[in-house]
Amino acid sequence: MLANFDRLIDRRGTHSSKWDAMEPLFGVSSDDGLAMWTADSDYPTAPCVIEAVRAAADPGIFGYFFDDSDYHNAICWWMEHRHGWKIDPDWILTSAGLGNAIGLCLDVYTDPGDSVVIFSPVYHEFANKIERAGRQVREIPLVLADTRYEIDLDAAQAQLTGAEKMLIWCSPQNPSGRIWSADELRAVAEFARANDLILLSDEVHHDLIMPGHRFVPLNVAAPEARDRLVVLTAASKTFNIAGQRTGNMIIPDAALRDAMLKRMKALDLSSNRLGVEMVTAAYSPEGAAWVDAQVAHLNRNRETFDTMINAIPGVRSLPLESTYLAWVDFSGTGMSFAEVEERVKGRARIAASPGPAFGQGGETFLRFNLATQHARVDMAGARLQEAFSDLQ
Amino acid sequence: MLANFDRLIDRRGTHSSKWDAMEPLFGVSSDDGLAMWTADSDYPTAPCVIEAVRAAADPGIFGYFFDDSDYHNAICWWMEHRHGWKIDPDWILTSAGLGNAIGLCLDVYTDPGDSVVIFSPVYHEFANKIERAGRQVREIPLVLADTRYEIDLDAAQAQLTGAEKMLIWCSPQNPSGRIWSADELRAVAEFARANDLILLSDEVHHDLIMPGHRFVPLNVAAPEARDRLVVLTAASKTFNIAGQRTGNMIIPDAALRDAMLKRMKALDLSSNRLGVEMVTAAYSPEGAAWVDAQVAHLNRNRETFDTMINAIPGVRSLPLESTYLAWVDFSGTGMSFAEVEERVKGRARIAASPGPAFGQGGETFLRFNLATQHARVDMAGARLQEAFSDLQ
Repeated sequence: MLANFDRLIDRRGTHSSKWDAMEPLFGVSSDDGLAMWTADSDYPTAPCVIEAVRAAADPGIFGYFFDDSDYHNAICWWMEHRHGWKIDPDWILTSAGLGNAIGLCLDVYTDPGDSVVIFSPVYHEFANKIERAGRQVREIPLVLADTRYEIDLDAAQAQLTGAEKMLIWCSPQNPSGRIWSADELRAVAEFARANDLILLSDEVHHDLIMPGHRFVPLNVAAPEARDRLVVLTAASKTFNIAGQRTGNMIIPDAALRDAMLKRMKALDLSSNRLGVEMVTAAYSPEGAAWVDAQVAHLNRNRETFDTMINAIPGVRSLPLESTYLAWVDFSGTGMSFAEVEERVKGRARIAASPGPAFGQGGETFLRFNLATQHARVDMAGARLQEAFSDLQ
Repeated sequence: MLANFDRLIDRRGTHSSKWDAMEPLFGVSSDDGLAMWTADSDYPTAPCVIEAVRAAADPGIFGYFFDDSDYHNAICWWMEHRHGWKIDPDWILTSAGLGNAIGLCLDVYTDPGDSVVIFSPVYHEFANKIERAGRQVREIPLVLADTRYEIDLDAAQAQLTGAEKMLIWCSPQNPSGRIWSADELRAVAEFARANDLILLSDEVHHDLIMPGHRFVPLNVAAPEARDRLVVLTAASKTFNIAGQRTGNMIIPDAALRDAMLKRMKALDLSSNRLGVEMVTAAYSPEGAAWVDAQVAHLNRNRETFDTMINAIPGVRSLPLESTYLAWVDFSGTGMSFAEVEERVKGRARIAASPGPAFGQGGETFLRFNLATQHARVDMAGARLQEAFSDLQ
């Protein structure tokens, strides 16, 4: 057996942000609260990754690292075999995780006061990082057509002022799990070209694709965009190693890459040894088999959660195409968001990410992290049904 | 027994920069070459640090890290018990290693075109980082009085133009191992105050102090400098974990600290989980006992190396007060530096750091890393004697 994703693990008191910051941030007691907010997983990473950590402990020498070629080759192997995307090892720069990569791209490719386009609702850290960098957020709402978000590029075009220098794109989409088609990606690439925007594509959830769906990398769908493209990926979500702060910036264009490299050298940013060794081990046939098993587990969690949550009148979980993040609309309850939150935190004792943080369109939503044991998903469903039982 | 620093370990092919980059960088074959250049150690880190890595592999969950208090308390404990320096946990920010900390300080506390003062010969990366940041190097030579460097602050004052905004100070001094007295540190602090310079004190070698010497932290010697002081330390050299990219920026002044924190948040720079866990384990009574044993080992290496090298006519190793880096002057041989290098690399098959890279005053020196097995130091001494045997 590759892994037992259902073995209950108590993460309280293990320096887990998701579990130990739950009470201070959400007021949900860790005594019997369920942490379903920040995007990490409640089960161990792949055995091959754990083995890489154990193997490093054996010589026990953690000096300066040399020769990224195994590491880069592993990344190339993964992109080709898992995503049909042939990349050159030279395209890869290592960031201290995905968030650091976004911060660096804002720093290198835009100037203070520039505007940066995002399509909301979207990963809340996009807007936070744009603002922390002293840039302006140009937030353009996605269109929710029944249960699926669509992008209206004509409406987007009408909202641009000419101050926009970058587009941060999320594919697969967080928080909704939407997978964009090749045609949609080509349209987004053309939108970036027409407006001379650097196109930053956050593809960090690309490995967690539900059965029946298929992810297309932006660079595969729209190779013509490569002169303005920066793709961000990481093993962080896929393998539950976000704390190790190791991400990939994949930059096909030499001039864009050189500008980033120059900045990284000035800041002396380089990969941490164990992070590199863990990712090298992860991006392997063993790692791939573990991810397949994980996706089957997540799909079962998704089915259970959706069935239970959609049984509550006025509540609906959008059909999850990818990611382990269920995006749940409470608008049909007719309740205020404050009332919904009070019931979820207070009655159901669940910490979920509040939708309004994801920008326009998120006002009536909560995002639930399903990367946990099936029993916990089942318990969450039962608690939510109970918390809203007066609607039955 | 705490550790066996003399167990021979073959680091070739282990992603070791020191050993695997030796041939491409120095032309010294790894077949029988001795790597004595970059500053890491050829023996494992402390058992308590290795145990922390093993312990992390057991749950095998590497999600987002929460609660730095154990980590910060360990750093405070170390500074107080090993250095008589009481610091507040709030003063500590975590960098991705010492080099990253220097890069960040240049970025946050100076502007492009500003000048930054260094006293040479000094760690070559000071000048490199100043230049990569687009700042100007104001290099002021130390004065070599017999076998010991002195600082001439009157001469330094005469060389300032008013464009200087920062002083990067190295204490203990790399490459010479010089330990500065409290009086000298107070004079440097006064020099910084008089010229309104941010005072960046690189104290990364503070734990490796030879018997009979005593290190004084700048903040202890000159507490009045705290409104302009940033102290950089790390467990990287002390515990041979430089590859894990985890360093301390200790900033007593709230305004300086807030400026750094704001920049780090914009770049989303935060500590990597295993680095934090390793440093927390290192800064402990067990770690301290291991460091004591290591220093005894280094002191024996130093004695052997100095005895053997000083027996070569015209060659002298400066008496090492701290660090594991022997700073060796070949000027008395009357040879050109090219000839010296050729003999050391070609005849002795040793890769040592070339003195000229350390700036003015380094022209006739090589720096030899003694953090290795005693047998290798002994072999290096014998090979150097052989390479210069015609001088006997």
